[in-house]
Amino acid sequence: MSELRKEPVSRRWILVAPERKKVKGSDGASGSADRCPFCIGNEDMTPGEIERWKSEGNVDSEWDIRVIPDKFALLGREKGMGRKGLGIYDVMNSVGYHELLVETASHTDTWWDYDLPHMEKVLELCRDRFRKFKGEKEIKHATFVKSHGISAGHSPHSHSHLLGLPFVVKRVEEEVKSADDYFSMKDRCIYCDILSEEINVGARVIYENAKFIAFTPFASRFQFETWVVPKSHESDYSAIDKNSLSFLADALMVVFKKIHCHLDNPPFSIALHTSPFKISDSASYHWHWELKPTSLDMAGFEWATGLYMNKYLPEEAAELLRKADPASI
Amino acid sequence: MSELRKEPVSRRWILVAPERKKVKGSDGASGSADRCPFCIGNEDMTPGEIERWKSEGNVDSEWDIRVIPDKFALLGREKGMGRKGLGIYDVMNSVGYHELLVETASHTDTWWDYDLPHMEKVLELCRDRFRKFKGEKEIKHATFVKSHGISAGHSPHSHSHLLGLPFVVKRVEEEVKSADDYFSMKDRCIYCDILSEEINVGARVIYENAKFIAFTPFASRFQFETWVVPKSHESDYSAIDKNSLSFLADALMVVFKKIHCHLDNPPFSIALHTSPFKISDSASYHWHWELKPTSLDMAGFEWATGLYMNKYLPEEAAELLRKADPASI
Repeated sequence: MSELRKEPVSRRWILVAPERKKVKGSDGASGSADRCPFCIGNEDMTPGEIERWKSEGNVDSEWDIRVIPDKFALLGREKGMGRKGLGIYDVMNSVGYHELLVETASHTDTWWDYDLPHMEKVLELCRDRFRKFKGEKEIKHATFVKSHGISAGHSPHSHSHLLGLPFVVKRVEEEVKSADDYFSMKDRCIYCDILSEEINVGARVIYENAKFIAFTPFASRFQFETWVVPKSHESDYSAIDKNSLSFLADALMVVFKKIHCHLDNPPFSIALHTSPFKISDSASYHWHWELKPTSLDMAGFEWATGLYMNKYLPEEAAELLRKADPASI
Repeated sequence: MSELRKEPVSRRWILVAPERKKVKGSDGASGSADRCPFCIGNEDMTPGEIERWKSEGNVDSEWDIRVIPDKFALLGREKGMGRKGLGIYDVMNSVGYHELLVETASHTDTWWDYDLPHMEKVLELCRDRFRKFKGEKEIKHATFVKSHGISAGHSPHSHSHLLGLPFVVKRVEEEVKSADDYFSMKDRCIYCDILSEEINVGARVIYENAKFIAFTPFASRFQFETWVVPKSHESDYSAIDKNSLSFLADALMVVFKKIHCHLDNPPFSIALHTSPFKISDSASYHWHWELKPTSLDMAGFEWATGLYMNKYLPEEAAELLRKADPASI
């Protein structure tokens, strides 16, 4: 009996899911300490496999990466939209996709441990699922989110969430609106202008290759916050080609290895911000990854005041990460 | 060398404060385990007292409540605004007020322990400081925020933060804009309409008295999230009168005792949302308190997706809290 309810002032859709009270942790990764549902040999614990990929060089196991439905999915495909008013409020069914990308057969590896072809494949499977979501009439937006080391409720076996949503993620909706305003003033993409400025200044750049740039944003909300952005204007992640995927994998791997090197296995969250499907060829919106390698000490204060406080100058964070040498550990 | 930097896409002001790296914890409550800076007798650890209140019945100590400057204030009054552009970005000095309300002489009491006159005085001192902030040209907005049990960085001695800011808190800015849109359609305050609906439905109401109502919002972001709202339209907390303060203290005390009774000393955050000073007689905005009695397990996921997931139906949370009987513990 979960449903989506719209908060009328913020206009944010909230998932109300009373049946989740029975679920331990927050990501549907059930299982006991001695039997991880994401490990080789335990595939029967996660039925309904959606995708599986195996590299040619792999002679040890049946797969390298899997996509499975979340056992306790926040969103499902059984019901119609059921949009309705309830007094002054708005409600709809929790329609959508909620899948898990089991990123590796290894129980312990994470983003700074993968090799480049493996990272590329993770990114490619994410793209492919977004293409699938995009083909569904009810689905308006997709997002990828991964947390590492945030809470005891998460399985330590590296996995990420793929969501196909019947609404646009609020943060992206705000970005789209702001980018539109900027475009109407300047006839340029605000993210393209930010990239020009960052390349020009240089102090906040961590790494760049032919197609991607990684930098600490000028007004970073979190210490060592990092954005990874395509250098040419692209609004829709699901349109990324094979060649660009390998440059993206390179940029992310370099950044994550540097973060791990400097911060020593920090908790992190990472989110992919891509355009809503209906404006997937937007001239004003620019897709990008946002990385937040930090714990959440200040969350209550920030939630309440809207005032984020960052102890590190972004220029200083970029310098520390540029200098971080993964080869030294 | 702290400064405020504006993130150009979200248009959120971020405080970048590299000197805070030296500060342990997040709220400037220094001191050692055996010497709490907020306890009676240790006033020399927190110089520059701004306000002090002592009840007539108090024969044991010199004060019941104090207002002091935050020792490691996020904002200060030494500098001019220093607004300037930096390439495509915007910067200003971290001008403002950052004060601590030491709410009680007791090292262990918190909001569910105070008596009614004490709670009323806490709320009155907050109002008085907001009036002071409102008189300053550079200060655009004020907020009150308190966290309990959130992180080891906080002093356990009950205190709250009073902020006078040179910009409007982003969450309130969004609320003001949304409430304006609603008013332009309906010629009514959206919060007044929400209150009518809540009183009409009843299922989410926790408590009401002659002047205030406490309820779990229809689309609660957090389990047991609670709003405490004046029943008649009021936009500016700093205009509250003595009589209303006592009804507000009553409503907050009842709610906090119920929360403590049902959730057993939960961590909590509480924030006061009041109008920006320049629209303090707004017909569309309605001040209110927001309480979040929960830990932050899901914070990373919510940060990344913008999708809050609440395990409790607000109607169920309200029922549990209505039934909670503080007298039974």
